[in-house]
Amino acid sequence: MIRIAIDAMGGDYAPAEIVKGAVEATTIFPVNILLVGDEKELLRLLSKHKNIESISIVHASQIIRMDEAPASAVKLKKDSSINVAVKLVKSGRADAIISAGNTGALMAASLFGLGRVRGVDRPAIATVFPTTGKDVLLLDMGANVDCKPKNILQFAQMGSLYAEHVMHISNPKVGLLNIGEEPSKGNELTIESYNLLKSSRINFIGNVESKEIMAGKADVIVCDGFIGNLILKFGESIGQMVVRLLKRELSKNPITKFAAFLLLPAFKNLRKVIEYDEYGAAPLLGINGVCYKAHGRAKARAIKNAIRVTAEAVKERIVHCLSMVEEG
Amino acid sequence: MIRIAIDAMGGDYAPAEIVKGAVEATTIFPVNILLVGDEKELLRLLSKHKNIESISIVHASQIIRMDEAPASAVKLKKDSSINVAVKLVKSGRADAIISAGNTGALMAASLFGLGRVRGVDRPAIATVFPTTGKDVLLLDMGANVDCKPKNILQFAQMGSLYAEHVMHISNPKVGLLNIGEEPSKGNELTIESYNLLKSSRINFIGNVESKEIMAGKADVIVCDGFIGNLILKFGESIGQMVVRLLKRELSKNPITKFAAFLLLPAFKNLRKVIEYDEYGAAPLLGINGVCYKAHGRAKARAIKNAIRVTAEAVKERIVHCLSMVEEG
Repeated sequence: MIRIAIDAMGGDYAPAEIVKGAVEATTIFPVNILLVGDEKELLRLLSKHKNIESISIVHASQIIRMDEAPASAVKLKKDSSINVAVKLVKSGRADAIISAGNTGALMAASLFGLGRVRGVDRPAIATVFPTTGKDVLLLDMGANVDCKPKNILQFAQMGSLYAEHVMHISNPKVGLLNIGEEPSKGNELTIESYNLLKSSRINFIGNVESKEIMAGKADVIVCDGFIGNLILKFGESIGQMVVRLLKRELSKNPITKFAAFLLLPAFKNLRKVIEYDEYGAAPLLGINGVCYKAHGRAKARAIKNAIRVTAEAVKERIVHCLSMVEEG
Repeated sequence: MIRIAIDAMGGDYAPAEIVKGAVEATTIFPVNILLVGDEKELLRLLSKHKNIESISIVHASQIIRMDEAPASAVKLKKDSSINVAVKLVKSGRADAIISAGNTGALMAASLFGLGRVRGVDRPAIATVFPTTGKDVLLLDMGANVDCKPKNILQFAQMGSLYAEHVMHISNPKVGLLNIGEEPSKGNELTIESYNLLKSSRINFIGNVESKEIMAGKADVIVCDGFIGNLILKFGESIGQMVVRLLKRELSKNPITKFAAFLLLPAFKNLRKVIEYDEYGAAPLLGINGVCYKAHGRAKARAIKNAIRVTAEAVKERIVHCLSMVEEG
């Protein structure tokens, strides 16, 4: 049975929603969950639930807050829930780690504790965008702010392998995020990266403009982490703004309220696509271990989905698959 | 009376919608319009309209297409509508130019023909985002893909002067687009730019994350043109996607169709904010002349708005105002 260590103290709704999501997941998927965090608090929360046979608790006395400087927090707070969870993977007691906490701390703790996959200079954070048609994997979403072309190439190789083995897309199409389609378009980084990608073995389809991200033209889209992070958070904010504006407009008078009531199912469908931050989790690709970052605002359902995706990655031996980057 | 030269042949809906927008504008604002393009075609289109006393035609035999390489097209097609329009400004026959055509060609023709404002190394394209609360000016939106910190500083100075004099915002708040609020966050460019901005005379409020763009925290937001272009086009595509998804959901059955009918005014209000590409035009700041880029998809209403904004910039002597960058 797959064993997943979850940082129960990380995220805006931790630990209650993390525990709830973990319990729900064990009732659906064949996984064992190790909840890492304050034992007393976690026992109290768990006592509210039934069907907790597949859940155990591992005590951690410290918490790394969302706004702490990652590297120093990971070094100073040896007994933080993130560090303890990483240690569970390192010692072989768990197959994977999930955290909805401080992204930088998760990356630093994983790097220090588990190291990198051979052939990968810099691990990357990959996020799935559920577009209208299908899922698209974007990376790097913020781990590497200044990249070299060879980093972009490795992101492409890792993304391609992940899309193939975990998302089950055969011969995934990989695109380079750029401001124009022609090979000559872009900045120094993208122009050089284009040439590297072109001569690699991956299924490189060329430049993809930002307006094409949601069109599903590529299965995997690569960019440096500075841009990825800007795009990710901008997209989230637009989705939230639209929902906020709709709510305001629809509550203006009795007629709009009535119409809004009739349209509830329609709005739910819309929300699924534009509020994509609620879904699943983002793998830290290139870490020598299966690490997933759940969204800071993840509630039980998002945690449950994160567990499903993480279990899938363990089953498909993603870390082993990524070792093919070296030969790429 | 303010005289504006319009590239009547540029844009997806040129020349018909350009002519229509120009005629509409002259009936509302005190401006003279010089329509630049194929004389025969423009005469034919104009003959369909009334109240055309304030409109004249200047013949140009060539057109630069949207997908042509800007610099070479501007050099080879001397008699293109963009080049001829720029010449009208250079010779003093017009006070400003507007084009909905090839952005790079407009920038190149303006640079070759009119030169730069003293103190500005690289002109930038600035776009107004109509957020929920107020307008926000973002630059550079694509003219400069690899920037130095001093370019970012100049963008900030130009944006601040434009916001003050044309958008009439007193002491405009200027933010630096970044992936975190702290001064230490970001890539090499933003970290160095932060320090330059901090020690400048502008009202610098620090880093602004992409999720804050639409929140109206800053009046002016600066970034390099590669990122600006990605953000701009991504935002547009999300807006369009939401509209498309809503349409699909709302036409599913008679109930949703009925509800959608009741909500038409609400959707129109929503559309105003999320389809911001339809509104106004983007100034090319730092060119020694008033140049505005209208959106490639601009129809009559967008052209009319572009004329209003351009006339305002002429009236406020924006080029003269920008000469203050030198002392900044």
